[in-house]
Amino acid sequence: MKLEQIKDPQFLKQMNIEELEELAQDIRTFIIQNVSQTGGHFSSNLGVVELTIALHYIFNSPTDKIIFDVGHQSYVHKILTGRAGQFSTLRQFHGLSGFQKRKESIHDAWEAGHSSTALSASAGMAVARDLNHEKGEIICVVGDAALMSGESFEALNYLGSISSKVIIILNDNNMSISKNVGGLSNFFSDVRMSTQYKNARNNYISFLSKSNLGKKVYKMTKKIKDQIKNNVINDHIFGEFGLDYIGPINGHDFHDLLSALALASEMDHSVVIHVHTVKGKGYPLAENDYYGVYHGVPPFDYREGIRHQESSTISWSEVVARHIEKWMHKDEDIVTITPAMISGSCLRSIFETFPDRSFDVGIAEEHAMTFAAGLSNAQKKPFITIYSSFLQRCYDQINHDIARMNLPCLIGVDRSGLVGADGETHHGVFDISFLSAIPHLIIMSPKDAQELKKMINTVFHHFDSPYILRFPKGSTEDMNVDLDEGIDIGTWEKIIFNDNNPLTILTYDAKVYQVAQFLMQEELPVNLINARFIKPLDEKMLDELFDLHQHLLIYETDLMTGSLGSLIAHYYSQRHMPMTIDYMGIDDHYTPQGQLDELLKLEHIHIDDLKQTVKEILHEKRKS
Amino acid sequence: MKLEQIKDPQFLKQMNIEELEELAQDIRTFIIQNVSQTGGHFSSNLGVVELTIALHYIFNSPTDKIIFDVGHQSYVHKILTGRAGQFSTLRQFHGLSGFQKRKESIHDAWEAGHSSTALSASAGMAVARDLNHEKGEIICVVGDAALMSGESFEALNYLGSISSKVIIILNDNNMSISKNVGGLSNFFSDVRMSTQYKNARNNYISFLSKSNLGKKVYKMTKKIKDQIKNNVINDHIFGEFGLDYIGPINGHDFHDLLSALALASEMDHSVVIHVHTVKGKGYPLAENDYYGVYHGVPPFDYREGIRHQESSTISWSEVVARHIEKWMHKDEDIVTITPAMISGSCLRSIFETFPDRSFDVGIAEEHAMTFAAGLSNAQKKPFITIYSSFLQRCYDQINHDIARMNLPCLIGVDRSGLVGADGETHHGVFDISFLSAIPHLIIMSPKDAQELKKMINTVFHHFDSPYILRFPKGSTEDMNVDLDEGIDIGTWEKIIFNDNNPLTILTYDAKVYQVAQFLMQEELPVNLINARFIKPLDEKMLDELFDLHQHLLIYETDLMTGSLGSLIAHYYSQRHMPMTIDYMGIDDHYTPQGQLDELLKLEHIHIDDLKQTVKEILHEKRKS
Repeated sequence: MKLEQIKDPQFLKQMNIEELEELAQDIRTFIIQNVSQTGGHFSSNLGVVELTIALHYIFNSPTDKIIFDVGHQSYVHKILTGRAGQFSTLRQFHGLSGFQKRKESIHDAWEAGHSSTALSASAGMAVARDLNHEKGEIICVVGDAALMSGESFEALNYLGSISSKVIIILNDNNMSISKNVGGLSNFFSDVRMSTQYKNARNNYISFLSKSNLGKKVYKMTKKIKDQIKNNVINDHIFGEFGLDYIGPINGHDFHDLLSALALASEMDHSVVIHVHTVKGKGYPLAENDYYGVYHGVPPFDYREGIRHQESSTISWSEVVARHIEKWMHKDEDIVTITPAMISGSCLRSIFETFPDRSFDVGIAEEHAMTFAAGLSNAQKKPFITIYSSFLQRCYDQINHDIARMNLPCLIGVDRSGLVGADGETHHGVFDISFLSAIPHLIIMSPKDAQELKKMINTVFHHFDSPYILRFPKGSTEDMNVDLDEGIDIGTWEKIIFNDNNPLTILTYDAKVYQVAQFLMQEELPVNLINARFIKPLDEKMLDELFDLHQHLLIYETDLMTGSLGSLIAHYYSQRHMPMTIDYMGIDDHYTPQGQLDELLKLEHIHIDDLKQTVKEILHEKRKS
Repeated sequence: MKLEQIKDPQFLKQMNIEELEELAQDIRTFIIQNVSQTGGHFSSNLGVVELTIALHYIFNSPTDKIIFDVGHQSYVHKILTGRAGQFSTLRQFHGLSGFQKRKESIHDAWEAGHSSTALSASAGMAVARDLNHEKGEIICVVGDAALMSGESFEALNYLGSISSKVIIILNDNNMSISKNVGGLSNFFSDVRMSTQYKNARNNYISFLSKSNLGKKVYKMTKKIKDQIKNNVINDHIFGEFGLDYIGPINGHDFHDLLSALALASEMDHSVVIHVHTVKGKGYPLAENDYYGVYHGVPPFDYREGIRHQESSTISWSEVVARHIEKWMHKDEDIVTITPAMISGSCLRSIFETFPDRSFDVGIAEEHAMTFAAGLSNAQKKPFITIYSSFLQRCYDQINHDIARMNLPCLIGVDRSGLVGADGETHHGVFDISFLSAIPHLIIMSPKDAQELKKMINTVFHHFDSPYILRFPKGSTEDMNVDLDEGIDIGTWEKIIFNDNNPLTILTYDAKVYQVAQFLMQEELPVNLINARFIKPLDEKMLDELFDLHQHLLIYETDLMTGSLGSLIAHYYSQRHMPMTIDYMGIDDHYTPQGQLDELLKLEHIHIDDLKQTVKEILHEKRKS
C-alpha cells in the first residue's frame, strides 16, 4: 500500500492478518529504502515493525498512549500516524525528528532521546489518568538494555507498588546498541514460555482464528476472561517487583502479538509483555550485526550495505581509542570502561586486545562512573568514555564519588559540542557548565589529534586527579605522538600573537584551526589563543592579556552560561581587572536538530559570524 | 568491656558467642549514650550491632574490605576499629565523621554519604583485586531501600555478569529512612527461609556448637563444604541477576550470622546474604519509629526520648510543606512527590491528608523527577522536594525531561547551602552551579517565610515552566500569607537603598536579614539588595546599579563558581558595562563537616567576614 497516504492508524482495524503481514513487509521496505538514503536509526526500527502495527491494531492512539523508550525505534509509529511523507526530511533541520516529538503529532505523548525515562514517565501519566478518572491505556515500549538502566529499575519497582496500570512491552532483542551485558540479560535468554501461558495463548489464538478479524476482535468471551486470571504468570523478576508477566512472545508473529496485547488490555494491573524481536529484522547485514554498525547509520546504498570507507581522516573517538590502546600496552594498570558504546566509542580493538581490562557495563552511566571510582580507589587507572549528553546521567557520581575523593582517572567526554541530527537531547553543550564548578577536575579540550594525545600522555604521566578530556563528534587528521610527549597542565597556547594587535580571540578545540586559517588568510591584526584547558584557566596568560590591554573575543560553540567565557569574566571581575570582552556561544535555550553548519548559523556562532564580529570590532577600534 | 581500649578487631577472634553477645550489649549502650549526646545517625547503627561484630569476626579487615553503603551505619565498625574514644567529637569540626572516611582509618576502604554507591565501588575494587592477583574479600553492606535505588540495580546486574566476587549483605529492615516503598520491598517481606538453606544452616550451627569458637572456627570440613554447593539457593531476584543467595538470616542471632558469613566466604562467586535486622534494635522508641524520627537525631536525653520542642521558629521544610498543603486544598491538580524524605521534608501531614495525591517513590531521585515530568505532561501540577545534595542524582532528568520539554512543576531544593555536621557529601552548595545553565528554569531563593510563600503562590498562579525553590536547613519564623499574594518573576528587592551610597551588597536567602541588621546597626552608607531570583537576573536593577556607578559586593555562602556572582560578572561583561565587584562565596574545594558558624568562618564567608570586607571597601572608597 501507499504508506504516504496513511493519515492515522484507524485503517488497521479493518485488516486481517495476511494484510497486516503485507503491511509489515511494505513498511520494512520503506524503512530500508528511506533510512538508507537519509541516515538514521535503522536496526531498531526494523525490529519493531510487527510489534508497532500490533500495538496500533489493538490500542486506540491517541486515547491510548504509546511511549517508546529513547524513541529512536518510533519510525514505524510515525509511518502509521501519518508521517511517512516526511521521511525524506528525517533528522534534518526543520525536518522529522528521529525521536518521538509532542509537537509533531498528537500520537506522540512523550519525548526523549536518552534511554530509560519511559517507565517513570508512564507511571506519572498513568497516575494522572487515574486521578482525573480518565480512560486510556499507557503503553510503554522499552528495550531489554534500557530496562537494565537504573532509572528503569526504579520505575519498575515503583510500578509494582501502585495500582495505576501501565502496559510494559519489553522489547527483548538481547542487544542494546551493541551486544547486551549484565546478569539479567543472561536470565532473559534462559526464559522459556511457561505452560500456563502457552495454554492461554493457544485458547486465545484459536478464538482469534475463528472470529473475523475486525474492530471487536479483542472483546473477549467471559470464558476467556476467566482463563486470563488463572494464566497470568507471577514469575521471574517482574513478579518479584509486583508486576504481572506475559511471555515470552514472538515479536514477529501477529497471532502471538495480538493475543498477548489483547490479554494485557483486559488486565487491571500493570503487566510486562516480554516480546522477543530480532534487531535489524529483514535486512540480513543488520540482523547479524554484533557491534551495532547498523544501529545508527549514515546514508548508504542498501543494495550493498555499509562499506568501510577509506579516508584520510579518522574519528576523534578512534584517535582517543587508539592512543589509549597504546597506553594499555605500556601500563597494565590502565582499564577501559564504556556504558554500551563499544562501537560508537571505537573500542572494539581495545576490547579484543585486552578482554580482561575492558568493561562494557551496559546503559548504566551511574554504575560506570562509581565502578571507575572503585577501580581507581584500588590503584587501577580507569579510562571511562561517555558521550557528553549521557554524562549528564552521572553528574552526582562524578561529583560525590570521583571528584570529592579526588580519585585519579581519565574521563573521555565524547560528542562534546553540537552533534547535529540527533538534536536537542544529544547536543553535548552542557558539560562545561556542570563540570567547571566541581573541585579537583581538570578539563581539557584539544585542538587536534596531536594535542589530544599529548593530553592523554600527560594524564598518565601525572595520574594525580580526575581529568576530563572533551572531544567532538566527527573526524580529524591523525598525527603521531610519542607516549613521553606531554603538555603543561593549565597552559594555553599562543597560535598567533603580536603584542601590538588590539584584539585577541580565545577559543578551543578544532575551532582553533578555523580561526587561524581565517586570520592568516585575511592578515588581520588579531591574536589567537588556544584555550585548551577550560579548568584550570591559564591565569598567567589572562594577566598578560590584561597588561596588554587586549580586547578579547571568546568564541565558543557550547552553551554560553557557565562556560569558558563566564569563567574568564568572573576571573577578571574578581581581580578588579577591567577588560572589554565579546562573547560568542549558545544562548540560554535548546538547539534543535540539523546539520552542524545550519545549527551554527542558527545560533550565530558559525565561523562566518565570527569573521563578521571580528571585522566589526576592528572597525570600531579603528574609529576610536 | 572498655570499648575505648579497642585498637583493632583482632580481639574478637578469641571470643565465644556469649562474649560476643555481651560485647553487642556494651556497644548498644555506648551508642545510645554517646549518640544521644552528640546527635548523629541512631537507629541504623543500633540495627547492625551484631551484624558488624559478626563481619569483623569472620573477616579480616583491612585485608578484607568492609564497605557500608551510605556509611551512616558504620559507627559499630568505627568502634571495633579503634575509634570509640573519638565519639565525643562525632560529626563535629575536625571530629569523627558520621560516615566512613579513608583518612580516618585503614579499615575504611571507601567513603560516601549518598546512597547506593557501594555495590558499584565494590565491583571496581573486586575487579582490581583480581587483576592484581591479590587476596581479600570485598564485603558490601547495603540497606534494602538503598538497594532499590537505580545505581544499586545497575551494579547488581553487572555483578551477576562478572566473575569477580563480592559478598553483598542485604541489611533488610524494611525501612529506608522511614517506611520503605516499592514492589520489591513487598516481595522481600514475603520471603521465607528455604528448607535447603535451613538444613545447611543447621548443619553448620551444630558444627559451630561442637567446636570451640576461635580463630579457625570457619575452616570447614570437606563434608560441610560439599554441602554448601548443594544448598545455596539460586532463587528470587538475585538468582535472576546471576547472583547466589543465602537467607534470610536473623541479623541479631550470632549463630545465624556467623554461619551465613562463613558460608559466603567459602563461595567463589558473588553472593547476597539477606539479613533481617530491626532498625533501632535495643531502643524501643526507635524500634517502633515508623516515620524515621530516630534515623538522624539531635542531642537528646536517652532516658526520656526525643521530645517535641515548643518553639517560636519552624523549619524551612515545614513552612514549605504547610503552604503546599494549603494549595493542595485549593487546587486538586497539585501532587507531592518525595524520594524517601517524608519526615525530613515534613510531609507527614500532606501524606495523611492527601494519600492519593502524595507519592513517596523511595530513594529514587531519577525516577522521582521523570515521574513528575510524566504527571506534568498529563496536566497535573507536581511539587517535588529533594535535598540539594541528592538533587545531583537527577541532573539529567531535570535537564533532559523537565526543562527541555519545559514541563511546569515546582522543584523544592531543601537543605540548600551548607548543612553542617553531615559534611562534604551533603552540603547543598552545587545546585546553583549546575542548574543555572539549564534553559527554562526559574530559580528562586527567598529571604523569609513570607517571601517563600509568595513565591509558591506565584508558581501556582503561573504554572508555565519549571520553578526551582531553594531553602536551607534549619529554622525560620513563620509568617502568614494569603494564596493570592504573588511576586513578580525575576524582580529583586531593594532592602536599603540610597542612590548616593557608594556600595551595594547583593545577597539572597536569610542572609538578607543578617546583612540588613548589620547595616542598620552600624548606619553604614551601603545599599542592600535581595537578589531573590538567581535566574532570571533582574536586569533592570543590574542596569540601574551600573548607571549609579555602584561598587558591588556579592555575598554568597554557596560555591562561588557558576553561582550568582559569576552570572552577574558575565552579564556586565557581555554588555561592556565595567563594574567593580567583590565576591564572597565558597572557593573551588569541598567544605568539611562542622557547625555552620565554624564552616562559614573556615570559608571566610561568615557575617563577620562580610562586615570586615564592607569596612575595608568603604575605607578604600573614602581614601580615593
